[in-house]
Amino acid sequence: MSEREFFRSRWVEKPEGIREVDVARLPEGFRASGIACGIKESSLDLGLLICDARRTTSAARFTRSALISAPVELNLSDAGLDVLRAVVVSSGNANAYNGQEGLTHARQIRDCAADVLKVGHSLVGIAATGVTGVPLPVDRAVEGVAAAERQLSTAGARDFAQAIMTTDASFKQASIEIDIEGRPVRISAQAKGAGMMAPSFSSATMLCFVETDAEMAPGSLESSLDDALSTSFERITVDAQLSPSDSFFMIASGASGVDCTNNRTFHQVLTAILQQLAVEIVSDGEGSTHVTRLKVVGAHDDGEAERVARAVADSALVKTAIFGNDPNWGRVLQAAGASIGKHAHHREQVKPSLWMEGQLLCEKATGAVSGEQLKQLSQMMKAGEIELRLDLHRGNHETEVFFSDLGVNYVKLNSDYMT
Amino acid sequence: MSEREFFRSRWVEKPEGIREVDVARLPEGFRASGIACGIKESSLDLGLLICDARRTTSAARFTRSALISAPVELNLSDAGLDVLRAVVVSSGNANAYNGQEGLTHARQIRDCAADVLKVGHSLVGIAATGVTGVPLPVDRAVEGVAAAERQLSTAGARDFAQAIMTTDASFKQASIEIDIEGRPVRISAQAKGAGMMAPSFSSATMLCFVETDAEMAPGSLESSLDDALSTSFERITVDAQLSPSDSFFMIASGASGVDCTNNRTFHQVLTAILQQLAVEIVSDGEGSTHVTRLKVVGAHDDGEAERVARAVADSALVKTAIFGNDPNWGRVLQAAGASIGKHAHHREQVKPSLWMEGQLLCEKATGAVSGEQLKQLSQMMKAGEIELRLDLHRGNHETEVFFSDLGVNYVKLNSDYMT
Repeated sequence: MSEREFFRSRWVEKPEGIREVDVARLPEGFRASGIACGIKESSLDLGLLICDARRTTSAARFTRSALISAPVELNLSDAGLDVLRAVVVSSGNANAYNGQEGLTHARQIRDCAADVLKVGHSLVGIAATGVTGVPLPVDRAVEGVAAAERQLSTAGARDFAQAIMTTDASFKQASIEIDIEGRPVRISAQAKGAGMMAPSFSSATMLCFVETDAEMAPGSLESSLDDALSTSFERITVDAQLSPSDSFFMIASGASGVDCTNNRTFHQVLTAILQQLAVEIVSDGEGSTHVTRLKVVGAHDDGEAERVARAVADSALVKTAIFGNDPNWGRVLQAAGASIGKHAHHREQVKPSLWMEGQLLCEKATGAVSGEQLKQLSQMMKAGEIELRLDLHRGNHETEVFFSDLGVNYVKLNSDYMT
Repeated sequence: MSEREFFRSRWVEKPEGIREVDVARLPEGFRASGIACGIKESSLDLGLLICDARRTTSAARFTRSALISAPVELNLSDAGLDVLRAVVVSSGNANAYNGQEGLTHARQIRDCAADVLKVGHSLVGIAATGVTGVPLPVDRAVEGVAAAERQLSTAGARDFAQAIMTTDASFKQASIEIDIEGRPVRISAQAKGAGMMAPSFSSATMLCFVETDAEMAPGSLESSLDDALSTSFERITVDAQLSPSDSFFMIASGASGVDCTNNRTFHQVLTAILQQLAVEIVSDGEGSTHVTRLKVVGAHDDGEAERVARAVADSALVKTAIFGNDPNWGRVLQAAGASIGKHAHHREQVKPSLWMEGQLLCEKATGAVSGEQLKQLSQMMKAGEIELRLDLHRGNHETEVFFSDLGVNYVKLNSDYMT
């Protein structure tokens, strides 16, 4: 099933001792399914995930947008997010901007899932992704939930992963096993996301579902997740957009019998999985042909590091240059200088240095590279993975961000979406 | 010479009683020229402007970026910006990111202009636009200054305007006459700008030069300009980028003998000219096919109005939808909701209403438009000018912003610039 090694990015450290197992298989205690119920024309569009353990430890994160979809609103108002047993997710229609009717529909679907799974309504999370402002065909979804329940399988992770995809060009999922205290523990994850993405700060990110058979003390997932997300999904941007639907769910069944509360190895594996998935999402950015890792160092404070990193990563000029394999370092400086200038109370000057793949491009805002070297760098950029290091020479704060480029196909995909 | 009426946008109120005069003619007291000196391959690339009045009143504004070009740095460190007599401007090379050498070159060019014009060095402003990080061919520029001096003419405004263009597809200039206290006063202006633009706050904007024969008391231009810029260049965005070179110069010769200090009519005409030029610049946004005016009302405070307007105007998803004539109102809501959410300390909800050309698209975040109506709106969008009104229902603060779309040609132009 799994064609390539999961941990394949040079930017993600592969944890020692892990085993990749069949991505269709879920950790002990979970079943899942993905079916086609007719929200989309002809592909899988409804997924169901259930944890058969009666007591779970779970955690969830949602978009920081002030305009949230009905499913997100229902989760926030109505769900026991730390003790979830199940999640129902549909794709093709985000059920956003549909007013009271949207909320009614979300509740119908969620309650139907709870009923067929025989769990309390508040123990079911709900998510949706797709077009906004169009009523969700709720009857199809409700019928789909019943059909999905009949398909539930311990080997249903791949169908579930497929059912959550929209413009994604590739599967984003993992199923990893690691021995902790001499006994095997599993973590699996399914993610989707390709456009409308810039997870930020403490917010959640696109759709991602993580299952583990680790035993976790109640509430103990929260801090581990905060930390893991801060170095993975929160460090990526495709088009600087927060969606009304971004959702992240993690459920621990405890079925392995191995207590992983505050366990360092477990945390490292979880973090690495989320990091690899985050890079996958950038790499699958709509129409994107390059993934760039930008490391910003020498910032005056954390806020400045973050703002400069985002300003460069979200600059249409930087992104189009990278799309064109153009090592146009002036555009990186321009975005950095503009960001610092906009946030300064008085006129300030910054003279950054910039490296690409270890090669110095400019030193203290002065070009340090020949035309011949630029041509070589342009050739190197065609490989599709680029590493930039920007030193602001203003202090010792740093951060990093992974971003996609901006190509002709991003425009084509997004100018021909609704009509 | 002037093919179309200058005040042609429905969004700019044409001042009463104005007369459009030959755009090549400058107000009394000015001469200008534009010549080809070889910075660019074969087009005009060096402009010179001189005010022959011995005492002028002038004002200038520069980019707020913390990484400024050598010409901007020289102006800031060395020029008498309120008593300028002349400006020398070159296009094809921005002389940015060239370190100490760049500053030396800028000084050579500026000093040469002062010498041939026989004015003090500090009375000459300097500007440049074009590629960054490449040494300016200073010898050609210095020779060009001498050649430009020989071409100076009271009818040189058109050549001057042409010499400052880079990726601009159209001339952006005006020459307007108005009677004040029964006597004619002239204002002319030449601007350039098509990409890398999001003038912000108190900053200056791309390149713009304004000449008038009005008499102005020393220092009196400042507040008039602040006000005029805040409703014109500071309300536009093409790609959210501040350039290291954005510069604005205005010189009053006083040659008309009409004192326009604090004159309301003069101020209105100046403002209208800058507004029309600002709209022209958006309309000439690189690869742009639409100009959209977004009015944000009902914001909680001015900061929120500004942030939401910029978030929508700079959203790649909104811009690509507009490029595709897609009245995808969900993307406007998404950008607004994300902006408010990102800046909120606690989770907040916003339920905006949105109109396009007076037609309600959604009411309190709920769709209010049929598929048939969306098709009609899509047809209407093909005209290329779109008016959006977004009510946040959170207070009574408002603002507006004019922005271009994001089309395939923006990507093509910007991914094939340097290499």
